[in-house]
Amino acid sequence: MRILGIDPGIAIVGFGFIDKIGNKVVPVQYGCIQTEAHTDPEVRLLEVYNATAQLMDKYKPDAVAFEKLFFNRNVTTAFTVAQARGVMILAAVQRGLPIGEYTPLQVKQAVVGYGKAEKKQVQEMVKMFLHLQAAPKPDDVADALAVAICHAHSSTLLQKVKEVHKR
Amino acid sequence: MRILGIDPGIAIVGFGFIDKIGNKVVPVQYGCIQTEAHTDPEVRLLEVYNATAQLMDKYKPDAVAFEKLFFNRNVTTAFTVAQARGVMILAAVQRGLPIGEYTPLQVKQAVVGYGKAEKKQVQEMVKMFLHLQAAPKPDDVADALAVAICHAHSSTLLQKVKEVHKR
Repeated sequence: MRILGIDPGIAIVGFGFIDKIGNKVVPVQYGCIQTEAHTDPEVRLLEVYNATAQLMDKYKPDAVAFEKLFFNRNVTTAFTVAQARGVMILAAVQRGLPIGEYTPLQVKQAVVGYGKAEKKQVQEMVKMFLHLQAAPKPDDVADALAVAICHAHSSTLLQKVKEVHKR
Repeated sequence: MRILGIDPGIAIVGFGFIDKIGNKVVPVQYGCIQTEAHTDPEVRLLEVYNATAQLMDKYKPDAVAFEKLFFNRNVTTAFTVAQARGVMILAAVQRGLPIGEYTPLQVKQAVVGYGKAEKKQVQEMVKMFLHLQAAPKPDDVADALAVAICHAHSSTLLQKVKEVHKR
C-alpha cells in the first residue's frame, strides 16, 4: 500500500510517499512544492494544485493523509493554507483516493509515542522508521513523512480491529 | 462585461451572474449550489468545484468576485469554507479569469453606501439595482449578487482612474 503524506501550505508544501509492506514502511519519494511569494495568491493555488496532481499521477498512491490545520495566531495565513489544502484534497478526490486527516498531536503520538514531542524528535523518528541517512529537510518534508507513517500505523490498527470483528 | 459573484460556503454557495452594460447592471442567472450534510467533506468539495466549473463554462464570465471570509465564531466551519473557496478560486484561475475579493464591509459600502448595513437593506438594494420583482432568496444568493455589483462598481472606478491617468 502506497501512502502520500502531505503537510499543507501555500509557500511550501511538504510531501512524502511511503510504501507500507507488512509492518514496515519504506520511503519512495519525498520533497516539497514551493511557490514564489511575489506571485498572485490564485496563481499559487493553481501551482500547488498542478504540482500535487502531477505527483499523484506519477507515484500513484493508494491513499492520501493530510495534516489537519490547527488554529494558529495568524488567521489570514491559516485561511490561505486552508484554501491550498482544499485544492490538494480536490486533486485526491478527483482520483478517487481515500483521504485521512490527522492532527499534529495524533501524528506525534503515532510517530514518537508522545503527543507533545518536539519537532526534532519527530524528525529523528522519521529518519529511524524510514532508515534514512539524515533527517529529511526542511521540517515540512519530515512532517509530511510523519503524517504518512501515522496513516500507515492507523490503517494497520483499523485492519486489526476489522479482523477481530470478523472472528 | 459579465461578472460572476460568489458567496462561498460548503453546504450552500450563492452565485450570481450579472452583465455590466455602461453604468447599468443586468441580472443573467443566479441561484445556489447545495451539498448534502451527510456526504463526505471531500466529496462535497468535489461537488462544489464541479458545479462552479460547469456554471463558469455555461455562462462564461469575464471576471469572478468572491466575498472575503471573515473570522467568525466557529473556526472549524471557517476552515471548511476556506477549503471550498480554494477550489472555486482554482476553477476561476484554471479558466484564466481575473479575480476580485471584497470584505462584507466593502460589499455593503458599495451596494448600500453604508458598511454596517443590515442584510435586509442589502437585499433591497440588490433587488432595486437589478430591477427584480422580489429580493433573491436565500440570503446567500442576494449576497453573491451584491458581491458582483460591488465588483462592477469597483471596476468602473478603476476604469475612471485609469482614464484620468491617461490624460
